[in-house]
Amino acid sequence: MASLTSRLEHSVKPDALRSYLAEFISTFFFVLAAVGASMASRKMVPDATTDPATLVAIAIANAFALSVAVYISANISGGHVNPAVTFGMAVGGHISVPMAIFYWISQLLASVMACFLLKVTTVSQHIPTHGIPQEMTGFGASLLEGVMTFALVYTVYAAGDPRRGPFGAIGPLAIGFIAGANVLASWPFTGGSMNPACSFGSALVGGSFKNQAVYWVGPLVGAALAGILYDNVVFPVQAPGHADRVGV
Amino acid sequence: MASLTSRLEHSVKPDALRSYLAEFISTFFFVLAAVGASMASRKMVPDATTDPATLVAIAIANAFALSVAVYISANISGGHVNPAVTFGMAVGGHISVPMAIFYWISQLLASVMACFLLKVTTVSQHIPTHGIPQEMTGFGASLLEGVMTFALVYTVYAAGDPRRGPFGAIGPLAIGFIAGANVLASWPFTGGSMNPACSFGSALVGGSFKNQAVYWVGPLVGAALAGILYDNVVFPVQAPGHADRVGV
Amino acid sequence: MASLTSRLEHSVKPDALRSYLAEFISTFFFVLAAVGASMASRKMVPDATTDPATLVAIAIANAFALSVAVYISANISGGHVNPAVTFGMAVGGHISVPMAIFYWISQLLASVMACFLLKVTTVSQHIPTHGIPQEMTGFGASLLEGVMTFALVYTVYAAGDPRRGPFGAIGPLAIGFIAGANVLASWPFTGGSMNPACSFGSALVGGSFKNQAVYWVGPLVGAALAGILYDNVVFPVQAPGHADRVGV
Amino acid sequence: MASLTSRLEHSVKPDALRSYLAEFISTFFFVLAAVGASMASRKMVPDATTDPATLVAIAIANAFALSVAVYISANISGGHVNPAVTFGMAVGGHISVPMAIFYWISQLLASVMACFLLKVTTVSQHIPTHGIPQEMTGFGASLLEGVMTFALVYTVYAAGDPRRGPFGAIGPLAIGFIAGANVLASWPFTGGSMNPACSFGSALVGGSFKNQAVYWVGPLVGAALAGILYDNVVFPVQAPGHADRVGV
Repeated sequence: MASLTSRLEHSVKPDALRSYLAEFISTFFFVLAAVGASMASRKMVPDATTDPATLVAIAIANAFALSVAVYISANISGGHVNPAVTFGMAVGGHISVPMAIFYWISQLLASVMACFLLKVTTVSQHIPTHGIPQEMTGFGASLLEGVMTFALVYTVYAAGDPRRGPFGAIGPLAIGFIAGANVLASWPFTGGSMNPACSFGSALVGGSFKNQAVYWVGPLVGAALAGILYDNVVFPVQAPGHADRVGV
Repeated sequence: MASLTSRLEHSVKPDALRSYLAEFISTFFFVLAAVGASMASRKMVPDATTDPATLVAIAIANAFALSVAVYISANISGGHVNPAVTFGMAVGGHISVPMAIFYWISQLLASVMACFLLKVTTVSQHIPTHGIPQEMTGFGASLLEGVMTFALVYTVYAAGDPRRGPFGAIGPLAIGFIAGANVLASWPFTGGSMNPACSFGSALVGGSFKNQAVYWVGPLVGAALAGILYDNVVFPVQAPGHADRVGV
Repeated sequence: MASLTSRLEHSVKPDALRSYLAEFISTFFFVLAAVGASMASRKMVPDATTDPATLVAIAIANAFALSVAVYISANISGGHVNPAVTFGMAVGGHISVPMAIFYWISQLLASVMACFLLKVTTVSQHIPTHGIPQEMTGFGASLLEGVMTFALVYTVYAAGDPRRGPFGAIGPLAIGFIAGANVLASWPFTGGSMNPACSFGSALVGGSFKNQAVYWVGPLVGAALAGILYDNVVFPVQAPGHADRVGV
Repeated sequence: MASLTSRLEHSVKPDALRSYLAEFISTFFFVLAAVGASMASRKMVPDATTDPATLVAIAIANAFALSVAVYISANISGGHVNPAVTFGMAVGGHISVPMAIFYWISQLLASVMACFLLKVTTVSQHIPTHGIPQEMTGFGASLLEGVMTFALVYTVYAAGDPRRGPFGAIGPLAIGFIAGANVLASWPFTGGSMNPACSFGSALVGGSFKNQAVYWVGPLVGAALAGILYDNVVFPVQAPGHADRVGV
């Protein structure tokens, strides 16, 4: 609807700048807890991959931190906290492309800085990166991450739907809980990322981009499909515009 | 009230078709997390049945995933996500028999596909099926599953009651939490299913229907009794109709 | 205010009878999950007292099950689910003595039947009873259980306060969460009961009333003090009557 | 705005005194659960620092207990439960300095008494104090605690913002959840305190003030920065006054 110029102008207005800051803060808090919990488990047991208590610790950290990250930014930036969510929203037309790009930059920068802070304060503990076991294929991992992200973004759409009535209030909890549940189901297989920013930050600071594509291709495709399905098939009555969706 | 023909017609209208899709999506997400968490634990420790951390992981996956599955479908399909819940609602007259049958088909199909996806992406990891230990009887297991499902369906009825006032908003959380609590109490005894679709899907893909009857007889009887008790004894003032109950 | 006769008559009216049934159902569900989780852990590891994952499992079962038990009965019976809570409400004048007695009977009966069901269905697995370690005194254990129950009943009072505004909706969650937190803090010391019905039921079916007094004296005194403090000191503006408090 | 005298007078009025009592009660409950969970884990396994289940137990105790502690005091004292939060509120001008001082006294006293009660009832079990591993520096630990407290206080500000709309109801849960997530990320590194009162109480009763400065400097600086950032940059439209913020 709007011309590119007006969209670009919109993307540097004070409200937009505050959105980017809110995304930065929320993503920083989220990655700090998610990656921190993985490091904390590794500090306690050398081979954290053989103790299901590690799985629980990381899943709860993801669930709680994502709930809060979405909660605190929902009425400013829409509480994306995740490039895949932003991509899904852009595909559905709920955020302009220039703004989406600034969201991505904020999210990626926040993730890198959170991982860097963890590395510095813990005196160069190893930053764990997302990875897949020997027997799995990149395609399988991508598919699993994609389906998990599909579930996450579908929940984000549902939580942001103004037709949801009284229990819309628990939207941020629902978003955190689906992330936690999916981590419990996938951590030993793909690391349970569903978030390219988190995977990118830990890869950059951890120094290994092995299988990084898995954490971008699957989640972006899954997010786009979730947005298309929700808007066009499950809830076809299109809501009037942008505001209803941004703001959980 | 309505004739069979009009009921059948109602069951293939767009709103009804969206309900089936919503049930499919929610059940798919739920089974993916519930069965996935069981597989993830087994990937981490060979004998997951001797580590209570496994119990916690599976219970939280059930609680979080069911909360979200109910949340995202509540205002479309009523958020059943479980053939036993649909059966309890049909017994109470809150859903027509033709629609209930389509709900069942959607739920069973979703569960099979979720288990199949897990098998494919994890390169043929074993799909764990619900089972009972040597010393327990089928009747005892059925009774325990039945009572647990009774608790679950009773909570679904309570959550969908419009007289519940301000805290109706946390209904989806309550439904997930009772499932999680019951898994904690029964997993080493019966697997803590309370959901015939989940048991069926894992049995079909896992290739073992041993004790499958346990996960149908108990839950269906328990669900029917919960609906009858709630509507007729605990809250005897019948609400005017169908809409109040479908939609959490 | 009312004469004894009218109070007795009130206590057998249909509404009152439904309250007792609601307390029975809620307490049954709660004890099933709380005692069941303890049995499930013991089934998985022989010495459950040396694995902190057991602590987590039992605490979450208590938190989730109590939240739901309160949620489903809140608008019928007030969601006590605990003789100590009923005692605290009776001391504060929020429930008549005859009704309180029927609440106690319902709660104790429900707990016994839940433990009995667990014993039968699991083919005579040992029903674990609350107990204290060698080095602790009965007085110390009573004091700790009393303070924990004080926290629980104080939270029940806060959740039932109509002046609490919009976040009254999460009252049932708050009640479950304080129970879970207190179990995490006290399970290896006193078993973290805070609920005489739960302790009584497991003692009767488990066959050991050792230290049973600990689980009555502490909780009842703590509950009474919590009610007195909340009504008279922290929130001294007395609400007009009974209804505001019963019903979370 | 008000003169020092009027502020002092305000700080001893009945409403103010009830605030201090509410802070005392909430902090007492919180520290009892947080420190108690640490003691309970240690009672179960001698070296709790090598079992990630301990991490989960302590994190959930923090999350659940803080949620409830905030919930029960939110509409009386604002639900600070933490000297760092009070400091952040004082820096932002949302609480007067005399009142803040009384809040601190209440919080510190409550923490000491909770730790003392735990020591007495468990017959002189060791009270665990917050500490840092050999390889970490005091500055690094302070920085990590500071950033974690920044996240906590930022969430408190967001939860207390009247512009947050319908999901303000879950504010107390969000505050508890960010604390839990941060404990999961930092417990093996700094103990995950974010609360000088908790660190002070356990240090006094446990008898070791080693690294105590870490738990004051970081959290106080982090809290002040969070308040300044929230009020001036992220949400620059200043709400009219004090009441909107006190009361979650």
